This record gives sequence, C-alpha cells and structure tokens, in this order.
Amino acid sequence: MQTTSLALHTDKYQINMMYAHWVNGTHKRKAVFEAYFRKLPFGNGYAVFAGLERIVNYISQLRFTMEDIKYLSKQEENYDPVFLEELLQFSFQGTIHSMKEGALVFPDEPLIRVEGSIMETQLVETAILNFMNYQTLIATKASRIKQVASQDTLLEFGTRRAQEADAAIWGARASYVAGFHATSNMLAGERFGIPTAGTHAHSWVQSFMSEQEAFDVYAKVLPDQVTLLVDTFDTLNSGVPHAIKTAKKLESQGKKMNAIRLDSGDLAYLSIQARQMLDDAGLDYVKIVASNDLDENTIFNLKAQGARIDTWGVGTQLITASDQPSLGGVYKLVEREVDGAMLPTIKISANPEKVSTPGKKEVFRIIDPKDGKAIADYICYPGEEQPLQGGPLKLFNPLHPYLKKTVTRYEAVNMLEPIFVNGRKVYELPTLDEIRSYHREQMDLFWPEYLRKLNPEIYRVNISPAAWNMKQKLIAEHVQSTEE
Amino acid sequence: MQTTSLALHTDKYQINMMYAHWVNGTHKRKAVFEAYFRKLPFGNGYAVFAGLERIVNYISQLRFTMEDIKYLSKQEENYDPVFLEELLQFSFQGTIHSMKEGALVFPDEPLIRVEGSIMETQLVETAILNFMNYQTLIATKASRIKQVASQDTLLEFGTRRAQEADAAIWGARASYVAGFHATSNMLAGERFGIPTAGTHAHSWVQSFMSEQEAFDVYAKVLPDQVTLLVDTFDTLNSGVPHAIKTAKKLESQGKKMNAIRLDSGDLAYLSIQARQMLDDAGLDYVKIVASNDLDENTIFNLKAQGARIDTWGVGTQLITASDQPSLGGVYKLVEREVDGAMLPTIKISANPEKVSTPGKKEVFRIIDPKDGKAIADYICYPGEEQPLQGGPLKLFNPLHPYLKKTVTRYEAVNMLEPIFVNGRKVYELPTLDEIRSYHREQMDLFWPEYLRKLNPEIYRVNISPAAWNMKQKLIAEHVQSTEE
Repeated sequence: MQTTSLALHTDKYQINMMYAHWVNGTHKRKAVFEAYFRKLPFGNGYAVFAGLERIVNYISQLRFTMEDIKYLSKQEENYDPVFLEELLQFSFQGTIHSMKEGALVFPDEPLIRVEGSIMETQLVETAILNFMNYQTLIATKASRIKQVASQDTLLEFGTRRAQEADAAIWGARASYVAGFHATSNMLAGERFGIPTAGTHAHSWVQSFMSEQEAFDVYAKVLPDQVTLLVDTFDTLNSGVPHAIKTAKKLESQGKKMNAIRLDSGDLAYLSIQARQMLDDAGLDYVKIVASNDLDENTIFNLKAQGARIDTWGVGTQLITASDQPSLGGVYKLVEREVDGAMLPTIKISANPEKVSTPGKKEVFRIIDPKDGKAIADYICYPGEEQPLQGGPLKLFNPLHPYLKKTVTRYEAVNMLEPIFVNGRKVYELPTLDEIRSYHREQMDLFWPEYLRKLNPEIYRVNISPAAWNMKQKLIAEHVQSTEE
Repeated sequence: MQTTSLALHTDKYQINMMYAHWVNGTHKRKAVFEAYFRKLPFGNGYAVFAGLERIVNYISQLRFTMEDIKYLSKQEENYDPVFLEELLQFSFQGTIHSMKEGALVFPDEPLIRVEGSIMETQLVETAILNFMNYQTLIATKASRIKQVASQDTLLEFGTRRAQEADAAIWGARASYVAGFHATSNMLAGERFGIPTAGTHAHSWVQSFMSEQEAFDVYAKVLPDQVTLLVDTFDTLNSGVPHAIKTAKKLESQGKKMNAIRLDSGDLAYLSIQARQMLDDAGLDYVKIVASNDLDENTIFNLKAQGARIDTWGVGTQLITASDQPSLGGVYKLVEREVDGAMLPTIKISANPEKVSTPGKKEVFRIIDPKDGKAIADYICYPGEEQPLQGGPLKLFNPLHPYLKKTVTRYEAVNMLEPIFVNGRKVYELPTLDEIRSYHREQMDLFWPEYLRKLNPEIYRVNISPAAWNMKQKLIAEHVQSTEE
C-alpha cells in the first residue's frame, strides 16, 4: 500500500459506534478491551506472538488526514461536521499493554490490553487484530517448521504466493522472529535488516544456449554466492553433472561453490542421488537446497526418508499458513466506566467458548525455580494478592475441578509490558536480534512435550478464583435478566 | 505498508540475475515472459482475473530510490557501483499485455505477457505474481459465493482476519469486482469508491446498562442505517425482542429499521424464528443479516435448510480464501533473443504439468454467434492464420486426440489487451463499475455447466497445432541432448 494514513484501515462500524457515542455524549467514557484468541492454530501447543512493532507504528502515527475527513463527510451517515472536525484533531491518548514479540502465548489469555476512551479504543480494534492475527499466525507456522529442522538453514521464499505485499513483508519478518535465517524479499531486507537469500530462476538457464553456459556465467559473476538450480531440464542427467563441472572450474580458481537447489521431483530420492554424485566428485562441501511446496510435515517426512538436504526454501505453505490461514483473534470489551467507576462486563454467546471473561486482567507466567520451566499461565485481576506476593498458588481448571495443583515455590513473570501510557510511548522497540533471542529463551522455558508438532501436551492457562467467580456472577445475572 | 517505493518488493534472485546479465553484457537482450496458473482453485470451473490496476500502478511508479540503492550497495554480493548507478536511472520500458480485470480465465493460458529487456522483465516477476495471484484468488472465491446467493446482498467483512493490510484492502476490491455489494473496510471505500457497510459490535451493547438502551441510542443517532446485532446475550430471548421494541419506536417517528444481524448459534433456526417474530410484530420489511465464518458451502446449505437470511456478511473464509489460500500462478520465459532474433524456449520438468509451452502466445475466446456462448479458448502464435481469418478452426486436445471438434462459424475475441507499449501506458484503467459490468458480461458468456460450484464441466483451452508442434519439438531436442 502506498499510503501513509491507516486511520481508515478500520471497519465502518467502528466509525459509526464512535459517532453514536459522540452524539450520545458517551464517547469519553473509559473502556478496557483485551485481544486474545480462543484456539491454537495447526493443532500446535503454543503460538508465537508477533505484530507489536507494526501496531506501535500504527498507533504512533494514527491521524486522520484531510482526505480521510473529506471522504467521511460524503458517507451516507451524514456525520456532524463538528464530529469530523474533532477527528482531525484525534490522536491516541490511551494505554496499551502487550506481550512482547517472540513470546509463547496461549488461548484465552490477553495478548494486548487497550485502555482509553471508548472512542479511541474502538477505532483501533480492526487494525490491531489485522496485524496481530496475521503476524502471530506466521510466526507460529514458522516455529513449527523450525522445530522439525532446527539444525538446518531455513529460507523464507513465499513472496509470489503471499496474500499481497504487506503479507510478504511482515510475514518474512514473522518467520525471522521464529528462527528462520533469511528471506528472499528484498524490501523486507531493506526495512527490517533481515538477511536476504536467493539463487537464480529457471529463466536464467533458459536465457542461455546451454545449461552449462548459464551455470558458468553465474559462477563467474557471483563466485562467492553460487547456488545453482539444477532442475530446469533434468536434475540428475543434466543439472547436477553441469553444476559439478562449474564447481570444478570454481575450484581451479580457488573458490568453493555454495550449493545446488532442487525444485521439483522426489526430493528424497534426488537429494540422496545428488549428494552421492557431489561426494563422488569430491564436492562434499557443496550443500543441497530444496524448495517446492514444503512445510513442517513434508520436511519431517523427507528427513525421515533420509533426504540429504541442508537448506530448506519454504514458500507458499508458510507465508499463507496454508493449512489454517487465519488466527481467530478477537478484541473484547472487559470493563467500562459507569458513573466514574470501572465495572467488569461480559459477552454471552450461544457458542459457550465465545463467552468472554470480564474485567481487566494480568497474565503471569508461573515458573518452577528448580528447573526454570514454565508450569502454567495464571490470569488474575491487578492487585490480587497471588501470585505477586509469592504465597501458595492454587491452579485449578474450573471446568474440570479434579485438574488442580498447588504450587508454593515459583517465580511469577508479568507477561504484559506497558507500551503506551496515556498516549505516550514508553516501550523501546527491541531490535530483531533481541526479539529472536527473547523468543529462544521463551522456547527454552517449555518442556518439549508442549512443543511437539503432533498432539502436544496442553499447557495450563488458569484463571484466578476471583476472575472465575466474577465470570459466573455476570453469567448468572444475564441468565436471570433474560428469564424474567 | 507505508512506503512509496516497491522496487525492492522482489526476490533477491531477480536482482542477482539482473546483475549477472549486466556483468555478462546480456542484460539488454529481449525476453518474453508469460504469467499463468496451472490449476483452478477450490475445484472451481473458472477463475476471475484481478490485480491489473495494482500492477499498472506498480509498473508506472517503478523506480529505485536512493535508499534502495544504498541498501543494495551493502549487500554481500558487492554489486558494481556502475550497475547501481544504472538502477537509479531505471524505469520500465517494456510492453505488457494482460487480461482485463473481471475476465473469466482458465489454466495454462497467458494472463499477463511481459516483453522487454531480460533485466526489466525479470525484475517485475515477483510483484506481478504477488498481486495477480492474491487478487485473482479472492475474486474467484467471491464469485463462488456470489453464485450461491445471486439474489442476496453480499458484504465483505474480513479485515480483522485478512493477511495484513494490503490483503484487506485489495481483497475487498477483488470481492467487489466479482459482485459483492460493499465492504466494511473504510480505507478500501476511500481508495476505490467501494460502498461501505457496517452495523455495530457486541461492545456497543456491552457499553450500556441494557441492550434496550444500546439499541435505542444507536437508532436515535443513525435512524436511517439501523442494523442491530442481536446476539450479545441471547438472540431470541433478549436481542430480537429488544430490536422489535426499537423498530416500533422508530416507526412512531416515521422511520423504518433496516435489519437485525445474527452472528452466532444456528443461523438456519435462528433466522427462521427471528423472521417469524419480526413478521408477527408487523416488521416484515426488517431484513436479516447473518455473519460467522460463512462461505459458499455454508450459505448454500443454510439456504437449502430454509434459512431466512437476506444479507450475508462474509469474512475470514473469503478474505483468506481459506480452503485454498494461494493461487499457484507462475511467470515463465517463453522467448528469448539470440543474435537479434526471438527464439521460443521451454522449461522441462520431472513434474509433467510443469513443462511450459514455448513461444509468445495470444489467447482467443471462441464464441458461438448463434447463442453468444463461449465454446473454447484458443491459444496460438501471433500471425497464425486462424482464428483471425475466420476459417474452420480445429479444436483438439493433444493429450486426448479423440476430444476434437471443428468449428466453422465463430467470433474470436482477442483476450490480451495492450497495457504498456515500450514503457508507455496505453491502457486507460476502467472504473470499478465498468469492471463489474465487464465481469457480468463475461459470466453471461458461459453456460451454467461451467459455472457450478461442484464438479463443473471443464472448459476447453486448446492450443494451436503450431504451438503444440513447437512444444513437442523442443521437448524432443532436450531429451536428445541429455541422452547424448
């Protein structure tokens, strides 16, 4: 997108609700919203939080331009010109807490908490969800791939199949957060400092009289970066033999070829054969890169079959999160101002999993000091005595009360960082290297049982008795009021 | 994305190949590339081409900024400064032909043809595919939804689940091209003039003391646009009765409520019950809007069950093309310059469907003048006598020769429009209304058998004998050369 204003990157109903509150005189009432998801994607045991940097930039730059106002004035709602005038003066004055990028996060815990006037908190819902949902989804998908190929080099190659430009660029960043090593997208490289990688296309080979000539020219021009795509005509009968000849010519100049790339056919068989051919030619240092609709499942199976692949170029399946292309993150009102006091509020639903947990909440990660591993996440109200005071902490699953556990010695890490306080940014965005390192620490917090790709153990996310009781109380009140 | 330069929205290998050609002195050689897909998405019988406006803007504005050059100069490839200096002067000087947006398109036919120097044609590959793949995918998905609800109002509600901002905005546009009526995304409304639509959220109801108060305030402020979300607490016991009271109050002011919206629970049952309650209250004019993870299959089934829904708010499943979130469009070199002459070129593959058809090609839609319906698409070389001269046209399927047919009376419509000629834009972008109307004409060209959602009849895409023979000849040459 070639625009600098994202103020209108929001749903119409946000503007309508802002306007209705404004006309009604309730637009300055305080509200607390929390963004969370209800279900982990891909059957995974955790998600990797991402999107915060994008959100911070969005909130910092959130202004309505004259063009935006002009557009709104032509809407059929006939917004009052005084309202539109006020929008022109708008900037975000609220308070935001958020998980840090790279954090492992779980269902039904607040990932981002937004406090402010109902008007400003409503406006930002759409964009926050749009950024958080996509980037968290891709970081999670990338983390699954990282888990099955932790010793290999992982390249993000998805741009041509990404869902438009922003997805390509922010998806490349999310993949890097979760441990990928490089992207093919140069704009992501330029904007975020992510290492870039690339080889050549079939068209390179086709644009010369012979494959050998194509390989030799490429190696001559970029002798330190030679990765040759060997499947334009015939991988084992043409591509690999020609690549070996080029590698030998490079050797005679004291240079070493980097790799060959396989992009079609049976990658297990071809990589084993190609490895043998390279080794037989004394080129054991030449690596094998593979691409072609890869994901964590194909990579896992190729490795199980003995594929000799050092580097994986992962495209479509990663950048679109192909097996589940959306994270169902939602943004729910949990507290509202009534006569100057903040009251918890609930959303009931015919779908029980859609009932929200009322009240502004904190998330603590409860860690066993003996082994440094996470025991549970604990969601409670600010000011609750435990776990802050360190006394015995009762972890219970209210739906299955026999699943309970009391921990006495623990560290409680407050997961929600202050990002904006009354409109002022108080959070210094970490570098991508810091985010990657935080993510690795986060991974180390968890036993492997929670991290495995298939049927992971379910990590405990418990809520405090106070929060649970409040939820039951509000449900009961609403049931009563509709039965009357 | 808040950037004005998309020159680096490309894969690194494009820059590397450009550079390698430049060093090799082959960068000004002419090349012809064609973009096409091999397989229709969703099991559909056709795709709806979209993305051209985005591509035209991209090509028109394609320049490297000083920042881009500075970034490239720091790459480990050590690009020659003279090369980087030339990039700074770069603009696209080639020729582009394309399908028009809204056209029905089919596998293995060129949708976009790019001719120019190998350097410029290579640079634009990634972005062209990124834009074409996503927008064509979403227009196709939207068209499937349109087919099952052709008499209803269709709203695009997907922004919060879209894969980042560009997807939300360009996806809204693609949906509108295929017949959706409005989007919730205000930025799409502002930028493209798409009608916008929206109701209110659960948080609107939660932010008042009672649902009744929330409904009444909303109706008071926006009396001409009242669509009330009725499932915050209990659809039939609370939401609908409260909405009816609000509608009656509006009636007493001479106003008519627009609709109620259902967003959870069993939409068939709830819509039938709610319809009855509204009708019993004399509110037969109040419409019912439904949302909640809808797509063409759920809508089809809800209608079969007698659901009384007038308007469908379609989000996640549409904006991400959830059941197949990528179109596998590719961009292949079909001709290259050798000693001043253009020669056809081929890419062979161990995967037979990946073998390309050599040579620069035209696409004609062959139409039966008797009934105005399309018979086949015919792919041939420019200058071939048929179908331009109107003589008997032999349609044959080279893989299944018994599937042949000769047509004598036909109209042949050249589907590829000139967009840029030697760098100059020669195509005036149509308005969105014109595109929508062209799309409807395109739909009318096809018998319903090709358009149905499940197991559609396969539309013929035939290639001329000359193109087929050239393909066989080049395959034979390559097989021979690798056997030698």
